Amino acid sequence: DLHDLYRSRSGSSHLCPIYQRSGRSSVALMHRTLLSACAQRPKVVILGTGWSSFRVLSDIDASKFSVSVVSPRNHLLFTPMLASSAVGTVNQRSICQPVRPVCAAKGARFYESQVCAIDKRQRQVTCRTASGKEFNLDYDKLVIGVGHQPNDFGIEGVKEHALFMKETADATVLKRQILAKLEEASYFHALDSDMTLTSKEEEIRRILTFVIVGGGPTGVELAGELTDFLQQEGRQLYRHVIQYAKVHMLTYDLLSMLEKDLQAYACQHLAKRQSVHLTLNALVQKVDKDVLKLKIGEETTTIRYGTLVWCAGVKAHPFVRDLGLKLNKAGSLILVDDRMRVLGEDGIHAIGDCAAIEGIPLPQTAQVANQEAVYLAKFLNEGSPEDAKPFKFKPLGTMAYLGGQTAIMSSLPVVRRITGFFAYVGWRSVYWSMQMSLRNMYMLSTDWTRTLIFGRDLTRFGAASRPE
Amino acid sequence: DLHDLYRSRSGSSHLCPIYQRSGRSSVALMHRTLLSACAQRPKVVILGTGWSSFRVLSDIDASKFSVSVVSPRNHLLFTPMLASSAVGTVNQRSICQPVRPVCAAKGARFYESQVCAIDKRQRQVTCRTASGKEFNLDYDKLVIGVGHQPNDFGIEGVKEHALFMKETADATVLKRQILAKLEEASYFHALDSDMTLTSKEEEIRRILTFVIVGGGPTGVELAGELTDFLQQEGRQLYRHVIQYAKVHMLTYDLLSMLEKDLQAYACQHLAKRQSVHLTLNALVQKVDKDVLKLKIGEETTTIRYGTLVWCAGVKAHPFVRDLGLKLNKAGSLILVDDRMRVLGEDGIHAIGDCAAIEGIPLPQTAQVANQEAVYLAKFLNEGSPEDAKPFKFKPLGTMAYLGGQTAIMSSLPVVRRITGFFAYVGWRSVYWSMQMSLRNMYMLSTDWTRTLIFGRDLTRFGAASRPE
Repeated sequence: DLHDLYRSRSGSSHLCPIYQRSGRSSVALMHRTLLSACAQRPKVVILGTGWSSFRVLSDIDASKFSVSVVSPRNHLLFTPMLASSAVGTVNQRSICQPVRPVCAAKGARFYESQVCAIDKRQRQVTCRTASGKEFNLDYDKLVIGVGHQPNDFGIEGVKEHALFMKETADATVLKRQILAKLEEASYFHALDSDMTLTSKEEEIRRILTFVIVGGGPTGVELAGELTDFLQQEGRQLYRHVIQYAKVHMLTYDLLSMLEKDLQAYACQHLAKRQSVHLTLNALVQKVDKDVLKLKIGEETTTIRYGTLVWCAGVKAHPFVRDLGLKLNKAGSLILVDDRMRVLGEDGIHAIGDCAAIEGIPLPQTAQVANQEAVYLAKFLNEGSPEDAKPFKFKPLGTMAYLGGQTAIMSSLPVVRRITGFFAYVGWRSVYWSMQMSLRNMYMLSTDWTRTLIFGRDLTRFGAASRPE
Repeated sequence: DLHDLYRSRSGSSHLCPIYQRSGRSSVALMHRTLLSACAQRPKVVILGTGWSSFRVLSDIDASKFSVSVVSPRNHLLFTPMLASSAVGTVNQRSICQPVRPVCAAKGARFYESQVCAIDKRQRQVTCRTASGKEFNLDYDKLVIGVGHQPNDFGIEGVKEHALFMKETADATVLKRQILAKLEEASYFHALDSDMTLTSKEEEIRRILTFVIVGGGPTGVELAGELTDFLQQEGRQLYRHVIQYAKVHMLTYDLLSMLEKDLQAYACQHLAKRQSVHLTLNALVQKVDKDVLKLKIGEETTTIRYGTLVWCAGVKAHPFVRDLGLKLNKAGSLILVDDRMRVLGEDGIHAIGDCAAIEGIPLPQTAQVANQEAVYLAKFLNEGSPEDAKPFKFKPLGTMAYLGGQTAIMSSLPVVRRITGFFAYVGWRSVYWSMQMSLRNMYMLSTDWTRTLIFGRDLTRFGAASRPE
């Protein structure tokens, strides 16, 4: 009988034979074996899976170190393309590089956990898993590359009402929000027989008002991508309401790291070609549900909005302050020397957006984080020599996408600058070549092709099932 | 001055010129124009965006009808590949077909809303948007294709502790869960120095126990895909814990629609090749956190689990019962005649999983839903002729993927059956050709290629940003 055959089989073996490769069934034994294999090599613990920390993992010589990575995020996020993925030009998954395959290839261990404390005397870090279990990891070399978080500058209501552009899920949330607002506005056209509909016009306008706060590369690229989406898919698929859509950008200045004439070029393009309602010299004072208060010079005004995205700055994670390491004057960044060693500590390094090199002010960008990581991995691989050349940042240029297949590339090594369509091609090429795996290069290519042929992706997943 | 230039510009026009195509600024005027254009054509309202309803939308002649679609889901989900997308063989987005582009091409309207009530006398449906606003839509022809939901059979704890395989987000949730459990188990290998680790072994085993309840195509394909994932990516990337992973399948029978020998083939393959712990003749009695109670014949036993996926059956949405239409004996399906007309109603049709044809028992499958929809669209396009041929279901065969590049295809029109690798190729080809757009065919192809070359996707998005 079939039932008996398989029922008895399922009871017959305790271990699943396919997964069970060796005869050992004791975890302790396995760990003792692992332990002895690892004992000879110094232990490197890397905190974080961002630009800097992921790069150290990639570059470190696993034959010389026993490597562990601790991060609550199981992938590297290619942050510069987050806005692209929020409007469906590329998939979110295509800009994520999972950490496990790299760890497997290197024989490194990964712990999906947060760091809680560093015991410098014992050379141990205390970590906490997602489910709240604490454990310790010994280190000989500790690499801190935990990045930063969005900064609301303590402005009332930002935390509660704004969306952000920092983590992978932020793109999912923003995409869901954009589509939800377009659908919400669409409901009004059901009111065919209601001739007082003009009174609803203001409400439709509010629902379809998108406000971007912050004029750095993140805000500018979001404005470019969002207006691209509204002008293309928006006009094709939501033509009944798209005339009421409006994108505001509120910022003190725009792309301040660029030369003045390039700033003017960007302003011109965003305002004219992308129809962004650009307000410079603006400071948001207070955010409420559906409305924000704004100061422009000496004037105060309000904007009613449907969606608010806050791209106005970054700050340190609070736990960085609690690690007991020397910080910069603002108390937000870990101070390191020009060999990325935390000042006054032995065997502790900090890189990327959570670190500041004493006396050398550098921007908090992926480019800097990446170069610091390459330097540090080499430094560690060479045995942390005292006579190592100090780190020196080589600026490779700045770029930003402005929408409408137009970008700006500035301070480039050979040609000084490019603008327009060729800069857009350059922008894509640079981002494509910066991917840390062939896999993601492949995924980006197929996404771009899909968007070119079939348009952006418009799916919104909704809620999971729950029987009623 | 740059600031003044753009500040004044932003205040100068009330409407965004790029989105504003016509000179009209009154919604009411626009709607009056639309109204008069639509007045001549009979109004068809389609409820749902599932297999049946989406197909009616695709096939209906928009030159003859003014079409509106009402559904809380803005896309068609290709449900047969949900398990595939949960383990990252394909992206979730690749099995979703957005409804807006189809509506735009047909000049149809889409309302992201739920239906609340039907006023048969006034020929109106009352709908509710996601934000709770109610509105009415007039209809001349109403098509109800709202599908069904998972059935927990009222068993205690299922709703609270199980995951399901029905909606798009279910795949996201399951993927997150599988990876979370593998990471949770991985934490134990941090306890290097703890020699009492063997006491933790049972806990690791529990965390990595995956229980699938239900032996229909959904459960079987999930078991196949999940064991594929564990045997490939699992063994490569989680080799330190994968030996403790175990997949249970609890079901009364397996693929009951197939011939006995094919059932035996499937059992054999799942148990031997995929190492699924298959328990037939099993009935789940109660589910608690981490443990479930099971009856096998007369015996009662318990299984401690980390993940429980419930694929054991479907039932009607409760609102279907409240629509005031004639139902089948079980009170769960809308009764229709062989022209898909709801019994005793005028101008109301029901198709797919929420409908039952009186006297003709048919399975609740995508195949049936699709054929009913094709029939109904033709029936409506031809002006609902009284002498139309009645609907007749043409069985095109049954198939199921079993994992390990092995599938079953049965009751095929020409060759009677195929099993093994060729059935797997056939299974993929059929699903590929069933996509309703070139876009999704393209996306599936690139996903499969990616998985073939680079492996399954392992990204888990985590939470959105919120400044601390």
